[in-house]
Amino acid sequence: MSRGSRTRVIAIVWGLSMMVISLASAQTNPTPSPPVSEATETCLTCHTVLHPALVADWEGSHHAKVTPEQALEQVGLSRRFSAPAVSEDLQGVVVGCAECHTRNPDDHADTFLHNDYWVHTVVTPNDCAVCHPQEASEFEENIMSRAHDNLARNPLYRELMEAIAGPHEWKGGELKQTAPDAATLADACYSCHGTEVAVEGLEFRETDLGEMEFPRLVGWPNQGVGRINPDGSQGSCSACHTRHKFSVETARKPHTCSQCHKGPDVPATKVYQVSKHGNLYASHGDEWDFDVVPWTVGRDFSAPTCAVCHISLVVDGEGEVAASRTHRMSDRLFTRIFGLPYAHPQPLSPETHGIVNSAGLALPTELSGEPVSQFLIDPAEQEKRKGTMKRICISCHSNAWVEGHFRRLDHTVEETNQATRTATLLLEEAWKTGVAQGPAQGGGVFDEPLERLWVESWLFYANSIRFAAAMGGADYGVFAGGRWQLSRSVREMEKELRLGSREK
Amino acid sequence: MSRGSRTRVIAIVWGLSMMVISLASAQTNPTPSPPVSEATETCLTCHTVLHPALVADWEGSHHAKVTPEQALEQVGLSRRFSAPAVSEDLQGVVVGCAECHTRNPDDHADTFLHNDYWVHTVVTPNDCAVCHPQEASEFEENIMSRAHDNLARNPLYRELMEAIAGPHEWKGGELKQTAPDAATLADACYSCHGTEVAVEGLEFRETDLGEMEFPRLVGWPNQGVGRINPDGSQGSCSACHTRHKFSVETARKPHTCSQCHKGPDVPATKVYQVSKHGNLYASHGDEWDFDVVPWTVGRDFSAPTCAVCHISLVVDGEGEVAASRTHRMSDRLFTRIFGLPYAHPQPLSPETHGIVNSAGLALPTELSGEPVSQFLIDPAEQEKRKGTMKRICISCHSNAWVEGHFRRLDHTVEETNQATRTATLLLEEAWKTGVAQGPAQGGGVFDEPLERLWVESWLFYANSIRFAAAMGGADYGVFAGGRWQLSRSVREMEKELRLGSREK
Amino acid sequence: MSRGSRTRVIAIVWGLSMMVISLASAQTNPTPSPPVSEATETCLTCHTVLHPALVADWEGSHHAKVTPEQALEQVGLSRRFSAPAVSEDLQGVVVGCAECHTRNPDDHADTFLHNDYWVHTVVTPNDCAVCHPQEASEFEENIMSRAHDNLARNPLYRELMEAIAGPHEWKGGELKQTAPDAATLADACYSCHGTEVAVEGLEFRETDLGEMEFPRLVGWPNQGVGRINPDGSQGSCSACHTRHKFSVETARKPHTCSQCHKGPDVPATKVYQVSKHGNLYASHGDEWDFDVVPWTVGRDFSAPTCAVCHISLVVDGEGEVAASRTHRMSDRLFTRIFGLPYAHPQPLSPETHGIVNSAGLALPTELSGEPVSQFLIDPAEQEKRKGTMKRICISCHSNAWVEGHFRRLDHTVEETNQATRTATLLLEEAWKTGVAQGPAQGGGVFDEPLERLWVESWLFYANSIRFAAAMGGADYGVFAGGRWQLSRSVREMEKELRLGSREK
Repeated sequence: MSRGSRTRVIAIVWGLSMMVISLASAQTNPTPSPPVSEATETCLTCHTVLHPALVADWEGSHHAKVTPEQALEQVGLSRRFSAPAVSEDLQGVVVGCAECHTRNPDDHADTFLHNDYWVHTVVTPNDCAVCHPQEASEFEENIMSRAHDNLARNPLYRELMEAIAGPHEWKGGELKQTAPDAATLADACYSCHGTEVAVEGLEFRETDLGEMEFPRLVGWPNQGVGRINPDGSQGSCSACHTRHKFSVETARKPHTCSQCHKGPDVPATKVYQVSKHGNLYASHGDEWDFDVVPWTVGRDFSAPTCAVCHISLVVDGEGEVAASRTHRMSDRLFTRIFGLPYAHPQPLSPETHGIVNSAGLALPTELSGEPVSQFLIDPAEQEKRKGTMKRICISCHSNAWVEGHFRRLDHTVEETNQATRTATLLLEEAWKTGVAQGPAQGGGVFDEPLERLWVESWLFYANSIRFAAAMGGADYGVFAGGRWQLSRSVREMEKELRLGSREK
Repeated sequence: MSRGSRTRVIAIVWGLSMMVISLASAQTNPTPSPPVSEATETCLTCHTVLHPALVADWEGSHHAKVTPEQALEQVGLSRRFSAPAVSEDLQGVVVGCAECHTRNPDDHADTFLHNDYWVHTVVTPNDCAVCHPQEASEFEENIMSRAHDNLARNPLYRELMEAIAGPHEWKGGELKQTAPDAATLADACYSCHGTEVAVEGLEFRETDLGEMEFPRLVGWPNQGVGRINPDGSQGSCSACHTRHKFSVETARKPHTCSQCHKGPDVPATKVYQVSKHGNLYASHGDEWDFDVVPWTVGRDFSAPTCAVCHISLVVDGEGEVAASRTHRMSDRLFTRIFGLPYAHPQPLSPETHGIVNSAGLALPTELSGEPVSQFLIDPAEQEKRKGTMKRICISCHSNAWVEGHFRRLDHTVEETNQATRTATLLLEEAWKTGVAQGPAQGGGVFDEPLERLWVESWLFYANSIRFAAAMGGADYGVFAGGRWQLSRSVREMEKELRLGSREK
Repeated sequence: MSRGSRTRVIAIVWGLSMMVISLASAQTNPTPSPPVSEATETCLTCHTVLHPALVADWEGSHHAKVTPEQALEQVGLSRRFSAPAVSEDLQGVVVGCAECHTRNPDDHADTFLHNDYWVHTVVTPNDCAVCHPQEASEFEENIMSRAHDNLARNPLYRELMEAIAGPHEWKGGELKQTAPDAATLADACYSCHGTEVAVEGLEFRETDLGEMEFPRLVGWPNQGVGRINPDGSQGSCSACHTRHKFSVETARKPHTCSQCHKGPDVPATKVYQVSKHGNLYASHGDEWDFDVVPWTVGRDFSAPTCAVCHISLVVDGEGEVAASRTHRMSDRLFTRIFGLPYAHPQPLSPETHGIVNSAGLALPTELSGEPVSQFLIDPAEQEKRKGTMKRICISCHSNAWVEGHFRRLDHTVEETNQATRTATLLLEEAWKTGVAQGPAQGGGVFDEPLERLWVESWLFYANSIRFAAAMGGADYGVFAGGRWQLSRSVREMEKELRLGSREK
């Protein structure tokens, strides 16, 4: 290298070093922070010290970086803010602690005076609706937002909860079961379905700043999707939009859904993991862009996560909308493959606890399997929604593939409903012959071992088979809680029935 | 900073900006696209619009970027193309839609005239063999390519499939089971094993371009590894080399194998996940290079995925071959730890449905456990293949470690076969005493609860224990479908036998 | 662009190219390698060729890059080296093969003469203690380091192991079970708990360098956390600090813990995966820094992995210690939620095999559930440890959240212990009435199906429910091995008892 060019290189290196230094200092002295409201500033004074990681999470959020006014400037499909305008108190500041936790104070039974601010603990869909009204109103019509009530107010499901979670006592040669208390239910079914969060009064607690007064909450903590909130609203946005980053990336990844949809009753995650889609996500998801809005199939991701098929706004390479964003999952669902005990057309209303069949049971089907049609969508609506779903599939699959897939799914729904019919006949026979004690015999529906075989046959196995059919989950339709276990349950019911009859 | 140096920095920044702009524009106006055949160009005209993500996937593939001629230029271990020369019609173009979907048109019963091209839907190993003949011919000798026939043509396994997937009816106080239909089997066992894809005729379908004629396929869609194809070939390369990127990275990651090898019968994935190897993949796999050929242990990856031990070409840091690439998995397998019902030496032929034991059952072992040797590899061949596998282990483990590991595995094979022997004796006793109805009593082998306990004892639990021993899967050999469940099954069989005998 | 500026850009590009070249050459001709001892140099001569990936792993480790003296220079919380000074033979060299494998040669029964060096195969906590004495001594008081002995020396647990892993024989119409041999136990329980590694003598083996003499080890290979080592020490650091990189990153990720803590008896990993914490790790963990010491909550990670709550030194954004590093896990644990058969206060000593209840059983509780307090920590100590744990939670959660969480966990401990009480009463009734044969009737505790129902009720289901309560694991407290299965077990025990009594 000549002396001259060496000098030049040295000069360049020095110049670059200066740039690096200047970039580094830019990182530690960032561009002017986005404007934070005075109230939020007050919160941060203490809470940054008390809960540093909570605050750090928020600092990484869109909420902390973009003011609602800036969010409004986004037009078209890239907009993340569905309110037509920004409410007055949100003008010029980012969405910080106070913007949510002091919102609608009068509606909140959990509002309390905290350092001169009327603060509430539980942020609810009604609070979020200030900026995201469309999402909130769709979510209100989403069966998930009713997850608590649909369980708690359905007498049959309540009996199921009690059979599962109620304590047993062995006394005087008899096994007695009593109803579970609220703390048990909060730790069990309501962990996903949502608790009822209520205020039991105020209490003084010792804090770093001396004694302070706080509301005493029952049913707290809880992030269940159908939580009953102290402002009377239903649901919890943070079930999926994890606090305090509320990142769309988190919600778009399947791990969020897996929190509630992994058990044997709803093995969606397990099925997804062994599907081709799940394989591609696990193998290549780290190369995909989960944060961009709108979300372009084939560019931002190359196989669906749960959100792609069920919720997200998806556009194709030409910018055409393949699917509109919806927080009302049923927009893209035609058959409810979660059997109760049979798979059935999606319900008309998200509030299902009012559904009653001809036998007076709070079920969407008769015990014979026939759907209770007045509460359910009709075939035309089913076909329409199936079309909405197919529009997404077609981005990657040929027509013949898509049609073949859904034809097979429909067949599997039929097949498993038939199996549930057989299991139900065996149960009814057991009740009739006194081998088990059904409601007509003064017994429960879910307590005896033979009844449990019946429940597992549809709640675990028929469901698993249908999820496997819907998402390509192979062994979850056969040996992993699928047809092997379904046929075994039916055979065991028959054996119990035969042995039980003989003993009489 | 002096004025002079500031000027210089500004100049450098400006210079860099220009470079960034030029790099960015290079990204949006890429180097001339690789040459695409006229036929593929025609396909892309419509299908890019219809299935944008399908096309995007292909655009990201080696197929879309490298012409066969360029692939041929790679010499030695880095070559990915096993044909000695490029067929004429592939010269000068990359491998696009038409190169595969119009290949061997006369062989394909699913060929149809589509916009003046003779196109077929199902691309098969015979189509892939044009460029990858060695892989195709190895795969033909791989038991996986026979997964459909080895199941469908074995009368005993067919009986098992029917017992699992056949619908039950409760009628006149009796439980009757009939054979499952093709759609059920396609959704169940054949989902992994492969369907038989056949053409049932042609049909007109409404498309965006007006009415068009397409073949009506049965058994479609399906990517099962042993699929029977409309050109008479067996197998599906896309089972592992996921369409339409066909990425070696995908196939090398364990999520691909997990699609079929996760259930209780073959819990390979679950065992791998809790093994030290699986831990390292999950913890550090994102730093490894899954795309490079050849694949260097210690540099490109530091713990094996499934592919490392079972398929891939692996070289060590000195460029020495630790393992040759093979699509005939049995090259590195000595004992078949998947018991039927006993673990046994690997079969000689990939076509196992012709194997018959001395009792006339289509099984590789007697019911006593003795291998049916004329169909199985001999001890010398077993030792040789074990040596091939050990050569891979030794890259990271000492000799004492490797020898100790395989000695323990052999012991566990022996131990679990002994357990299967006990379970089988209990089953035979039940059949003999009439507690259950075996074939000699006019009954089935797999339908009654006691028989199911027997099947689970080897198909689920003995298998799980052996997989755990083979790959270091700890609890899958004990509480997670292992020795706890195996001993429980044996005890329950004994209880059923005792109670059943008493009732007589 | 003017000609002048174009010239300048070209000059800059050329200058940058030179830098790139110089950087690239820096990569291939790295800065002088860290100093390696002569002994290690000798090892590397052969072993780099024999086990290239093993050596590559070590080359990527801190051990290979940092000399103990450099490690000592780190002061305060960033220090990874707990010895006050460097032992003489480690001065000036990095920690290579010889530094560990020739350490304390006289203590090691597995020491052998290998190319003029006294080498041992099994590196033990005593060897690691030279540089990491604090970690080693904490680990010695960690119940995990006693995992072998606490199992092997407890007569009741030994009976359980035998009931699980002992071979059954069906002979003369009777099912006989014998004790499992050492190889079976090494592949089963001791796979995680640790084997007893012993030297059985020396043997000659053929190697690439001719015939050489090696010790013949039994119980090898094994990385179980409570391994009994040939130098008399207990435990295996490489159970978590995977050889030969010994990376803190690996140990901090949950996949390491999942190797042993995934089964139905300790479903910690499964519960974590569906918890909000596990969701965040799976969704965002790839953006976190797992290598830095100390580890800052909110900056380096935003949700806990296992290590955060149970082991690691955690500081907050202000550099305040939220949790001190400890290799004695019980420092942060108050109740042992792993029931034996009841959840109970943590034991005082890590050596639990000496614990005996008033019935003479080696259990930390009476069969009635009452803790055997003289062996367990008292309520004040429980409260103190709970406080240590809460200090971590508070980094992200409000006080009300944390208090509510632990109140609910305590309630679930109480609830599940009550269920275990009921199951135990049913078992005792079965023993009393002769429906099953307990110890008083000359039978075993764990062999009969009814006894197995009892074990599963606490070992699988009550444990799963408590893990779900502790870590927010939703369905693992309900349908996935939770309350559904617990109540089913109790009901089935009652049915067995009823049917068994009737038969008498």
